[in-house]
Amino acid sequence: MGRWQPDSRGRLAKAALVLYDDQGFDKTTVAEIATQAGVTERTFFRHFPDKREALFGGNQSLEATLTAGIAAAPPGLAPIDAVAAGLEAVAAMLGERRDFARRRRRVIDANPELRERDLVKNAELAAALAAALRDYGVDEATATLAAEAGIGVFKVAMGRWTESDEEKPLADLIRESLAQLKAVTAGA
Amino acid sequence: MGRWQPDSRGRLAKAALVLYDDQGFDKTTVAEIATQAGVTERTFFRHFPDKREALFGGNQSLEATLTAGIAAAPPGLAPIDAVAAGLEAVAAMLGERRDFARRRRRVIDANPELRERDLVKNAELAAALAAALRDYGVDEATATLAAEAGIGVFKVAMGRWTESDEEKPLADLIRESLAQLKAVTAGA
Repeated sequence: MGRWQPDSRGRLAKAALVLYDDQGFDKTTVAEIATQAGVTERTFFRHFPDKREALFGGNQSLEATLTAGIAAAPPGLAPIDAVAAGLEAVAAMLGERRDFARRRRRVIDANPELRERDLVKNAELAAALAAALRDYGVDEATATLAAEAGIGVFKVAMGRWTESDEEKPLADLIRESLAQLKAVTAGA
Repeated sequence: MGRWQPDSRGRLAKAALVLYDDQGFDKTTVAEIATQAGVTERTFFRHFPDKREALFGGNQSLEATLTAGIAAAPPGLAPIDAVAAGLEAVAAMLGERRDFARRRRRVIDANPELRERDLVKNAELAAALAAALRDYGVDEATATLAAEAGIGVFKVAMGRWTESDEEKPLADLIRESLAQLKAVTAGA
């Protein structure tokens, strides 16, 4: 490979995840991540503002996939079914990356700072989902309710999917979690 | 009033809100807030770690009220009805403070940094709600789903309650928003 190396961003994210998992988030420096990825520290900071963000670089494409899934849904679906269409698109995107997702979950769970950032990212995802539903033609209150509930479904499904002994595909877990939401909100 | 002044914390929070609303969050200094509240800057920092937190000091009692409402609910309710019990307790606590809530909403909406902090606080509230539901006897996945959906209900109801032309009490808006959630998740 020549001096120009493709996909520095992807290699940095991967190197960060491996180092955080092996030696801990707090003990890992940006210099180590850059070395591992074969780039300079300056390149790291061209891609990520800080060490935490190296773990959340995929959120942009997650958000894009979710909102595109809703935009591509057939018109006239019930809002919760539009959410389901978006989550199915996400499952198709993430579905093959279970080992990566498990490792990432382990790293996040081990660090309060990362758990907080994860909460923020999920809240941003909920806001993007609500906006996509409004674009789909759903009124604001319904969009907010369906989006918050939808992110709950996503969280539960991701939580199960990344458990070490779970073998069901993400798409199935999303469908189960959605069915569970319907049962929960139907009440007594 | 003597040199010892009761409720510095409450006066600081109120002074911060008034100043943020009148002259903008960015233009207000901690020194100004402290002067307005009749205390020193050092006292400000004894109560709040930073300027943003002066707006979110009430979240602890909000969280305590929400979780106490669930703990005090009759045993054996459906999870979503336990959430409703928690939200009713919140409505009873906040219900008389609409002018305060409107002003606070206006300040938060005007500032991206505050909007982000608000997202974090709501995510923390959802986590506390899920924990309260688990203590009530609800399994983890159901607790997460009901909590995320419940925070959606709370957000929508608070959004409507703080609109300038809305006159319905918070408790009614929460009930309406909960009914709307049930309709949304029931699907087509």
